Amino acid sequence: MTVVNRPEVVAELTALYQQYETALTCNDVPTLTRLFWDGPQVVRFGVGENLYGGEEIEAFRKQRPAMNLAREMLRLEVVTFGEDCGSVTLEFRRPVNGIPRLGRQSQMWYKFPDIGWKIVSAHVSFLPEGS
Amino acid sequence: MTVVNRPEVVAELTALYQQYETALTCNDVPTLTRLFWDGPQVVRFGVGENLYGGEEIEAFRKQRPAMNLAREMLRLEVVTFGEDCGSVTLEFRRPVNGIPRLGRQSQMWYKFPDIGWKIVSAHVSFLPEGS
Repeated sequence: MTVVNRPEVVAELTALYQQYETALTCNDVPTLTRLFWDGPQVVRFGVGENLYGGEEIEAFRKQRPAMNLAREMLRLEVVTFGEDCGSVTLEFRRPVNGIPRLGRQSQMWYKFPDIGWKIVSAHVSFLPEGS
Repeated sequence: MTVVNRPEVVAELTALYQQYETALTCNDVPTLTRLFWDGPQVVRFGVGENLYGGEEIEAFRKQRPAMNLAREMLRLEVVTFGEDCGSVTLEFRRPVNGIPRLGRQSQMWYKFPDIGWKIVSAHVSFLPEGS
C-alpha cells in the first residue's frame, strides 16, 4: 500500500485546510485556535515573529488587527504520508503597505489519536520585494 | 503510550539533523541531497525561491555559491510524533551583506518504510531587518 497521498487522507486534510483558509481571511480566531495544536511544542514562525506553544500563538491571534487579511491563493499543495501526517504548502499574494507581495506558508499537520488533525508547525514568510 | 517525543525517536532524528547542519555549513551537496526526499511532492521554500520536486532542489544546491554558509544556532527544537513523523525548527543568525540577520528554518521529516527519514518539506526565511 502506498504511503504518499492516499486519496481519502488527502481529501480529509484538504477539507480541513479549506476551513483554515476561510477562518484566516475572516479572522475567525476560535477556529484558527482549534485547528492549531495547543501543546507546548507547537511552533509558528510568522512573517515577523517566532511563537512557541499554544498560549503564545493564541495571544498573537487575539491581538492581530483584523484588517487586510485577504490573500490570493496561487499554488496549494497537500501531501500526506501514511494516515496521520501531512504537509500543506501555499504560495499566495497579498498587498503589504499597498505593494503586492508574494508569500509562502508551510504547515505540518499530524492526526493525534485523541484530538485528530492539528497544525503542529507553521511558517509564513514573504519573498524579497521585487520577486 | 505517548505519541509526542518518544525519546528514541527524538534521538534518531536529532542525530540526523546534526548531519544536515554540518552538511549545510560545509556545502556537502551529496549529503544534503540524500537527506531530502527525492519525490516529486517534496517542497523547499528558500529565502528567495520556491522549489518543488527533488530535481529542482538538487539543481538549486549545485548552483549555490559555497560561501558564507556558516550560521549561529540560536534555538533548535526537535518534536516527534509517533515513530515516523517529526518537526525540526531552528532560529539562527547569519550575516547577509555584512549585516547580521535573524533567520528561521522549519523542516518536516517523515520516516518512509523503505528509504527511512527524509525531509519532505522545508521553509527558510529571515525576520525583517532590524528585528
